[in-house]
Amino acid sequence: MASIKDVANLAGVAVGTVSRVINNTGAVKPETRKKVKAAIRQLNYIPNEVARNFKMQKSKMVALLLPSIWHPFFSELAYYIEDELDREGYKLMLCNSGGKPEKELYYLDMLQQNKVAGIVGITYNDIENNVSTDIPIVSIDRHFSKKITCVTSDNFEGGRLALRELVKAGAKRPAFMGSITKVFSETIKRKEGFVHEAKALGIDYVVYEKPDPVTDEEAFYGEFLSRHKDVDGVFAITDMFAANYIERAVKLGIRIPEDVKVIGYDGIQDHGLFHPVLSTIRQPVEEMARMTIRLLYKKIEGETLDRETYRIPVVFRKGETT
Amino acid sequence: MASIKDVANLAGVAVGTVSRVINNTGAVKPETRKKVKAAIRQLNYIPNEVARNFKMQKSKMVALLLPSIWHPFFSELAYYIEDELDREGYKLMLCNSGGKPEKELYYLDMLQQNKVAGIVGITYNDIENNVSTDIPIVSIDRHFSKKITCVTSDNFEGGRLALRELVKAGAKRPAFMGSITKVFSETIKRKEGFVHEAKALGIDYVVYEKPDPVTDEEAFYGEFLSRHKDVDGVFAITDMFAANYIERAVKLGIRIPEDVKVIGYDGIQDHGLFHPVLSTIRQPVEEMARMTIRLLYKKIEGETLDRETYRIPVVFRKGETT
Repeated sequence: MASIKDVANLAGVAVGTVSRVINNTGAVKPETRKKVKAAIRQLNYIPNEVARNFKMQKSKMVALLLPSIWHPFFSELAYYIEDELDREGYKLMLCNSGGKPEKELYYLDMLQQNKVAGIVGITYNDIENNVSTDIPIVSIDRHFSKKITCVTSDNFEGGRLALRELVKAGAKRPAFMGSITKVFSETIKRKEGFVHEAKALGIDYVVYEKPDPVTDEEAFYGEFLSRHKDVDGVFAITDMFAANYIERAVKLGIRIPEDVKVIGYDGIQDHGLFHPVLSTIRQPVEEMARMTIRLLYKKIEGETLDRETYRIPVVFRKGETT
Repeated sequence: MASIKDVANLAGVAVGTVSRVINNTGAVKPETRKKVKAAIRQLNYIPNEVARNFKMQKSKMVALLLPSIWHPFFSELAYYIEDELDREGYKLMLCNSGGKPEKELYYLDMLQQNKVAGIVGITYNDIENNVSTDIPIVSIDRHFSKKITCVTSDNFEGGRLALRELVKAGAKRPAFMGSITKVFSETIKRKEGFVHEAKALGIDYVVYEKPDPVTDEEAFYGEFLSRHKDVDGVFAITDMFAANYIERAVKLGIRIPEDVKVIGYDGIQDHGLFHPVLSTIRQPVEEMARMTIRLLYKKIEGETLDRETYRIPVVFRKGETT
C-alpha cells in the first residue's frame, strides 16, 4: 500500500504538507491541497484514522462536558476551545451533560479506553475516586478535587473588585446575592472576595444566598427586595442573577443605577444591543479556553503540572448599571 | 475473550441492558449499571469501540458544522441536536467551520472514510459536486443543491407574517432590511414572503439590502436611516439586524415602536431580561434540530427521502417593538 512519502513525492510537496492536508492542521494553499488530494486518489492512499487509532490505541478526540451549550458563557467557551483544539488537529466531542453523573462517568470510561484523548468540563460530580492525578482531565470553574486540574477566573479578586466598584459608584450598603452549590465550587470565592474587601474597607454589607439551584425565582428576589430595602448596591454571583434582580427591581420603581448600583459576573453580553448593558466582572473566556487546552495537552503528554488551580485575572467592564 | 453474553449472564441482566450501559443509550438504573460494570471488570470484557469501528468501519459520530457555536441561535440548535443524537447513542463532533471550505471538505473526507456517520451543518460552500443524493448530510437553513436535504423554518411564510404584523401594528410604509449572500440561501425567502404579502395587500413597501457580510455597519444603518425617513416599520432579516437598527435609531430620537415598529427573525432572546424584547418571527429551533437528526438517521440507514426541503412553521412572538 502507498505510503505518505509516496504521496508527497508524487505531489511534489513535503510529507508535512501531506500530513497537514490529511489532518487539516495549519494552512495549506487550495492548489496545493488539490495536488495532494489528487496524489492520494491516484495512489489510492487512504489515511484511515480508525485503523491508525486501532494500531496506536490513541484518539485525537477531546470530550467537552457542559451543563448546557445553550448558555452564552458556555457557548463562547466552546467556541474558543474548539478553535484551540483545531490548531493541533484535535476534534471536539460535545456533551450537554446537564450534570448527569452517568453521562460524565460514560466519558470517563471512554477516556480509560482511549476513545477520547482527554476531557474538558464543568463536572458537577465528585469523580475524584475514579481518576488519578495525571489523567487528562481539566475542569473549568468547578474545582472539586486536588486530582483534577482546574482553570478558573480569579473569583476572589473578582469579588473584591466588585465591592470596590460598587463603593466607588457611591454604594453605602452593598449586598452580595447568589446561590450556594452543595459541592464546593470556585464561584463561592466571589462572595469571599466581596466580604473580605468590605471588611477591609470597613463597609457595612449584606450577604443574601440560597441553596443552588434557585427554583422559585419570585420568592428568591421577592424576599431580597422586601427584606433589604436599604441596600443601594448589588453584586450578583452571575449576570443572569443581576439581570433577574434588575427586571424585578425596576417593576417596583427602583431606579438602576440611581437608587441601586448593580454589578454582575461573567460578561455574557458580547455586544451592547440589549439593555441594560450590565456592569460586570468579565471572565477572560478566550484565555481560559486556550489555557485549558494547553494544560490538557501537557497532561495527554504525561507531564505532571506544577499546580492544581490556574486562576486567570478578571477585569471590571462598566455598563449602564453602575 | 469474554462475550457480551457472558457479561449479561454474570450481571443477571439482558444483553440489551449491557449494551445500553456500554453505549449509554436509554435509561439504566444506577445499581444495574454498577452490576454490569462490575461484571465487565471481572470478566475483563473491554468493548473497544475503536476496534469495533475498525471491524465494522462504522462510526457513531455525527459532525456538526456551524459558522460559530457562539451565536445564540446556533448554540440553541446544537443543544437540541446533541440531545436528540444522545437518545440513539450517537456523539456530536462540533466544528466551528467559519464557512471555511477546507474545513467542510475535510469532514466530507471523514464521512467518505466512515469516520463520521453523517454531517449536519450550515454549509456555506457549494459541495454539490462532492456528494451524492443519499449521502448522510442534512443542511439547516442554507439550501444549496437538490442533493442535500435541507431543514429550514418556513422563511417565506415568516416574511408574509412579518409584513402582516407590521401593518396590523399600524405601519403604512414598512421596509425589509437585510443582506444578500452570494450563494443561494433559504433566508432570501424572508424578503420574498414580505414583498409578496405587501403586493397582495397593496401596501407601499421598501426593500433595503446589501451584499453579505455587512462589514461597515455604520454605513449600512446610516444610509438606511438617512434615506428612508418615511419608513414606519422595519422587518429585519435577523434579530441582530433588528437590534442593531434599533440601537442606532433610538440615538436619533426615533421612538420604537411609536415611530417605527420593528420585527426581527430568529427568536434569539429566550428570556425577557434584556431590552428591548424584540417582536420577532420565532424559528422552531428544537423542532428543526430533532427533525434534522431524524432525517439524518434515515439517510444513514440508506433510505431515500421524499423531499429535499423540509419547512417547519414559524410563529410571531410579540415583544416590545411592535
